[in-house]
Amino acid sequence: MYSQNYNSGYAPAPGYAPSTHGSLHSHGSVHSTHSTYSHRPRHSSNYSSQSYSSGAPAGVDPTLWSYFSNVDRDHSGTITVQELQQALVNGDWSHFDLDTVKMLMGIFDVDRSGTINYNEFAGLWKYVSDWQNVFRHFDRDRSGTIEGHELSEALQSFGYKLSPHLLRMIEQKYASAPTSTYGPPPGINFDRFVRACVAVKTLTEAFQRADVNRSGWVQFNYEQFMSIVLSAP
Amino acid sequence: MYSQNYNSGYAPAPGYAPSTHGSLHSHGSVHSTHSTYSHRPRHSSNYSSQSYSSGAPAGVDPTLWSYFSNVDRDHSGTITVQELQQALVNGDWSHFDLDTVKMLMGIFDVDRSGTINYNEFAGLWKYVSDWQNVFRHFDRDRSGTIEGHELSEALQSFGYKLSPHLLRMIEQKYASAPTSTYGPPPGINFDRFVRACVAVKTLTEAFQRADVNRSGWVQFNYEQFMSIVLSAP
Repeated sequence: MYSQNYNSGYAPAPGYAPSTHGSLHSHGSVHSTHSTYSHRPRHSSNYSSQSYSSGAPAGVDPTLWSYFSNVDRDHSGTITVQELQQALVNGDWSHFDLDTVKMLMGIFDVDRSGTINYNEFAGLWKYVSDWQNVFRHFDRDRSGTIEGHELSEALQSFGYKLSPHLLRMIEQKYASAPTSTYGPPPGINFDRFVRACVAVKTLTEAFQRADVNRSGWVQFNYEQFMSIVLSAP
Repeated sequence: MYSQNYNSGYAPAPGYAPSTHGSLHSHGSVHSTHSTYSHRPRHSSNYSSQSYSSGAPAGVDPTLWSYFSNVDRDHSGTITVQELQQALVNGDWSHFDLDTVKMLMGIFDVDRSGTINYNEFAGLWKYVSDWQNVFRHFDRDRSGTIEGHELSEALQSFGYKLSPHLLRMIEQKYASAPTSTYGPPPGINFDRFVRACVAVKTLTEAFQRADVNRSGWVQFNYEQFMSIVLSAP
């Protein structure tokens, strides 16, 4: 009876920070060197990149400021969704999905400006770094993707005891390629792994809130049901 | 009471084919000319593109065959998810999201090979073309994206009478950029519009099936709830 176990603990995944291995940029990274920006033409600017990057305001972490400046490609002082998506890449250099980038902006664009300022970026950077540690910890075979048994272990460690059926559905939905009858099931990239974990957390907590008497059953009308589903990333 | 109206008609959107305007490639298109492939190096092949493209098997539509051949970049005879994602672009030339491409492969990869063969491609092509007509029909202001009121009109014409609250959630979730307090809400690209409509259809039908006595209320345990949510694209 897996459905009885959904409420057995809800450690927020980013807080789970096991031992780190590898560099910050090996799986799921924010580009932080100019050499990795190869797709778009550089904009001319009154600032040279060098002087801009090193010109951190007083009291600001110079390293984090240089990361921020590199992501803020047009040096507007804020990061747009396009700039963020351009900067956020998985271990195989694929860009984060728009849905993951929008999820991150939904969490960290605190002033709802539609862009990320330096202070918001500091939070976002820490969140992504924490998730990188989680990802590396559970990517036991160092394949660069999370496979079924690794996903199962990760979600279980966060307190979600899901049935094999649900685990298979999550594995397939968030895999970076479609499942085929032939060959091994494809793995889950860093950014889709984070989105999967946040979606499971959001949906499980919504179910819990609706299950007021802890019977394992909830009653929804259409409006409530759709609201909950649409609120998951 | 919007929740009472959810079962008032379920015309499958792709079957809805109003008047067409514009070319097949103006909004949401399958690249069909070599000149649009600029990102990846061409693979050498025993076939020249020209002779391969024009060498349609007997009984096969030569135009559709040439589209298929152009999407099948390595001329393997089948289309991978990467090839499909490379080929499918929105009106602003952004690539379809992986989730939309996986949704399409889930519908049209009939033999579950993980790739799309010519016959499967024929179905996929028709589906995308039909949706292009739907998209163009509801993009009243020809902006290339579907805005809130256009989304509302589209979903209503498919039989989904959703509350303003749900419509706003769908608009924000599927918009091609995050919503901000400033400026107009961003619109929905072609590929995300299709995914939004298919998601609403999938979830509404699942709710209907669970609402056996048509009371407007359903009861779910955790397993049922999560299964339904995870089955939406």
